[in-house]
Order: sequence, then structure tokens, then C-alpha cells
Amino acid sequence: MKKVILDMDTGIDDALAIAYAVAKPELEILGITTVYGTAPVEYTYRNTVKVLESVGEPLPVRKGSDKPRERIREYNGKIHGMDGLGETLGELKEDGLVPSQHAVDFIIEETDRCGEDLTIVTTGPLTNLAAAIEKSPAIMKKVGKIVTMGGAVATPGNVSKFAEANIAVDPEAADIVFKSKLPVTLVGLDVTRKTLLTDKDVEKWRQLGTPTAELFASFTQFYLHEYKKLHPYLEGCALHDPLAVGVALYPDLVNTVPMHIEVDKTDEALGRTVENLHVNEDETPNTQVCFQVDAQAFMDDFFGTCHHPNFVD
Amino acid sequence: MKKVILDMDTGIDDALAIAYAVAKPELEILGITTVYGTAPVEYTYRNTVKVLESVGEPLPVRKGSDKPRERIREYNGKIHGMDGLGETLGELKEDGLVPSQHAVDFIIEETDRCGEDLTIVTTGPLTNLAAAIEKSPAIMKKVGKIVTMGGAVATPGNVSKFAEANIAVDPEAADIVFKSKLPVTLVGLDVTRKTLLTDKDVEKWRQLGTPTAELFASFTQFYLHEYKKLHPYLEGCALHDPLAVGVALYPDLVNTVPMHIEVDKTDEALGRTVENLHVNEDETPNTQVCFQVDAQAFMDDFFGTCHHPNFVD
Repeated sequence: MKKVILDMDTGIDDALAIAYAVAKPELEILGITTVYGTAPVEYTYRNTVKVLESVGEPLPVRKGSDKPRERIREYNGKIHGMDGLGETLGELKEDGLVPSQHAVDFIIEETDRCGEDLTIVTTGPLTNLAAAIEKSPAIMKKVGKIVTMGGAVATPGNVSKFAEANIAVDPEAADIVFKSKLPVTLVGLDVTRKTLLTDKDVEKWRQLGTPTAELFASFTQFYLHEYKKLHPYLEGCALHDPLAVGVALYPDLVNTVPMHIEVDKTDEALGRTVENLHVNEDETPNTQVCFQVDAQAFMDDFFGTCHHPNFVD
Repeated sequence: MKKVILDMDTGIDDALAIAYAVAKPELEILGITTVYGTAPVEYTYRNTVKVLESVGEPLPVRKGSDKPRERIREYNGKIHGMDGLGETLGELKEDGLVPSQHAVDFIIEETDRCGEDLTIVTTGPLTNLAAAIEKSPAIMKKVGKIVTMGGAVATPGNVSKFAEANIAVDPEAADIVFKSKLPVTLVGLDVTRKTLLTDKDVEKWRQLGTPTAELFASFTQFYLHEYKKLHPYLEGCALHDPLAVGVALYPDLVNTVPMHIEVDKTDEALGRTVENLHVNEDETPNTQVCFQVDAQAFMDDFFGTCHHPNFVD
């Protein structure tokens, strides 16, 4: 079993990634840490708890950072809805009991305990991870692997021509992560936009008909609708975050190229992930950039898992 | 022997590429076609003829396009000097006898004759090649391979943050080439900036002491000096164009990733080579993008060839 922490801004495709991850026997999920991103952290925390309830997996969840290091995160409800989950859960109803441990401390504690056996999968802004690296750099150096859904290296961005949302929202945090030289595998738009969910996949959940399947059908339908408006050239919506889990599980799904990646922090190309030219060529590259993906193999595994009648029962 | 046409805007590193190519017994160079770029085409034509005289190889040379399809090419003498060759040849003295056949017709004629046995190596703007594709699309489809020094896919550009010079100078021509679906291997800044010429390499030519070696030492010294001003983080000047010849000779020097590449023609990122999202995933990618290079192996072969006493004698 592979020990993982999922660091997420749950989010529709984060929810899909959770569903996929909890159903995979190869993964031991130590917990899910949450971060603002698709919605404020109170929502992404709530969404995480609710999705875990829905799939019947009571995992530890920790609430983390509520804003970027230096910038302002605004929410417009595009792609994920104002609640982060396609308006399926709506506004926060009450403050449930939230564990007092901060997401960043959970990450540090588990990294200290598990060391190189631990893979951290991030699917939101890198604010939590950067804070952990700043707080306990020596402990964080022990981590086995970081698989990050983020960036757009050879491909156009999704929040601008140059940048992908998770990086652009908190470029300073991403910069800390890349500069840390921790072993990052970058699962960017270069590959995630090639793995798609379509109307027929929503329909399959509808056919399963359980409450969980209905919930998944509802929020992915919202996501699909948003994609059709914003990215009409794609024949579906992208499985960004599930693919990060997929790459953590099965590294051979992707072809990676080792590179020195840095984050552009200028207004001109804010959040662009690009080669760092000011690095000595002899230094080990800080990032494995994913460029090609066996999209069919991944989608077969993902839908084979998430459409399985046992999964949502 | 591999049949090649070199399509060049000779240029200092083009001159190095010529010297390297003519010395390789594996290559049968059918001719060199010239294009404006580093300098007006009258200069790049003259430079090509003079470099061939200098290395003792009287190959066919054809003069080609004198300007981009839609834009204006201005010359400032940076990097290559106002004469294109580090001010070593200076202004045009007289109009020598220029063959009447246009570069574009030479390319078409030889592609028709040699078909898939032909590799076209381009080291300048793609204006000639685009014109050949427009004039005789059916014939050009027969070409075996195109190896293009150009583009910057995962790396910053050299004329802007986003674009490499050969593409940015005539983005409309590059667009025609990528859209043609001819089999392009893109030897971009992603790899060329990792193969370097340094002061000690200039010194070796000085030590050889022949007139040819002196000429090469002089113009590469100019090039090095320009690089130190403009790209001080590099520990030398880039062997852009020689590497394109190297990749034509030895494809295993680089790791390539198949991609659908297009050219950004907006002012915001003019000349950026980036993934084309509007292409059906099932279509064969139009480009092999080079991402990793065995820089040492290439430099050993290049300098082993170009510093050899027999070569410049």
C-alpha cells in the first residue's frame, strides 16, 4: 500500500479524485488536507467531509490555508460553482466540529512519521505545502514524492494564455515548492486536458441511481456545462485532479521529462510554469514534467472504479 | 549518406552549422538555400558562399526570400553583426554572379527528386519552406523529414519571454509549416541553449592559425561577446544551428515528445510555439519537440569535427 496525503481545494474534480482514491486498494490515504481555491476553505473543508461521507470513508480531514500568500483570491463560481461543488451542497449551514490541528501541521507530522514512504498529492493551490516547507524544511525534505496537479508547460493555460489556475492563484507558494527541490511530478494541463469525462459518464451515474451516484451525476453535470461554455473545443470536461491520483498510483501512465521549472511572478505571465534558465545545468532538475499520457488506460481505470456498482452503493 | 538541404540565414551559428555539416561524411549536402534573417538575404547569401569557400566546399547555393510574409524585418546587428557574420565580412562589395534559380524552386525540385530520402534542415525563418509548401504542396508532402531550429516550447524565448527569433520573425510562415503536417522535428531553445561554445573553443581556432580558423575565431568571438551582454547567465554562446545538423545526423542525441504545435500570432505572445488545443486528439501530432539533449555527446562531436586540424586546413 502506498501512503498518501491528498491536499485539496475540493472542488468537483477533487471530489472525483477523492472517490477514485478511496476506492483503490493500493492506496493508504492518511488524510485529506484542505485549502481555499475553488471556493473558500470553509467550503472546501465541508465539501471534503461530505464527499467522504457520501463514499463511506471517514478519513481524517484537516482545514488549512484560507488565502494565498500575497494575493487576493476572488470567487466567481465559474467551473465549480459558488459552493465549489456545482451548487449541490449550497451555502454552509452550520459550523460542524473542525479538528484543531491545522492542515500544515498534519502534513509535517505525517511526513516526519512516514518519510520517503509518503506521497503528497496536491490538487489545489500550493499554499499549504509551501507553508509546511517554510515551517519545517528539514522534515519536509524527507518526503518521498509530491504529485502536483498544476501548471501548463507546453500548453496554453486555463486562467490566462500562460497560466494554470492552481499555480496562478498563489504563484509565490508554487515558487517556494519548486525552489525547495523536493521531488515534484507536475501533472499539468499538458496531460490533464487529455483525460475527459463526457455526458455518457454522467448518465452512467444517473443509471446507478444511488444517492451517491446522484450526487456525483449532479456536480459533474454542472462541471460539464461549464466546460461546454468555457472550453467548447474539448469534447468533455477534464479529469485534472483524478489524473494526479492516477499518476501517484501508476507512474507509467505518463511520459515525464526532467526540467528545472520556475514560476513567472510578473504581471505579464503570472503563474506560468517555465524552464528556469538561471540554474546550473549540472544540478538535478527539480521537476518531472508530464507530457504524454495514456489517456485511455487512465480513463478505463478511473471509470472502471468510479462507475462500479459496489463503489457508490 | 543522408541527403540534406540546409535552408539558412547565415549567420554565425549557421556558419558553424555549415562547417560541421560539410565535414560529416554521413551527409550528402545537395545545396544550401538562403533566406533573410540574421541579415538581409543579399548578405546571408554572400556569407554562405564565403563560408563554403573558406571551408573548401563549393556547394550549390540559392538565394531565397528577402522578407517575411506579412511583417517587417528590421536589422540591428545584435548577436550576428550588421553583416550577419560578426563584422568579419562587412558590407557587400560587389554583386557576384547569383544563380537564377530561386531557393524555393531548388527546394521543390530536390524534394521531388529525392522524396523521403531528403531531410531539410532549416536554421532561419521558415519563409522559404512555407513558400515551397504553398507553391507545390503535393511535392513537398514527399519530403522525408524537416529538422527546424526554432521555437521555445517549455523554455523562455530569446526575442521575447515567449518566442524564439526564427519563428517570431515570420510567424505566418511557421504557421504554414506546422499546419502542413509535414514531419517536423523542432530543435528549439529547449535544447539548443544547452549546447555551448566558450572562450576556450575560440582559442583553439586561434591556435590552429589557418585563415579559415582565424575567420571562425573572429566571428564566434563576436557572438560570444554578444551573448555575454545579452544572456550573461549562460556560460558561453548557444550552438543553435549546429545542433539542428546534429539532430539530423543523430536523432538519438535528443529526447522528443510528439505534440500538436501551433504558432501564436497575437501581439501578446507573437511567435510562441505552443500546443494546439483545437486539434482532434486522434490526429497524428505534427511535430516532434526536442526536450532533452545529450549536450556533451553533441559538443564532443561538433568540436571534434570543427577543431580538427584537417578540417580548417
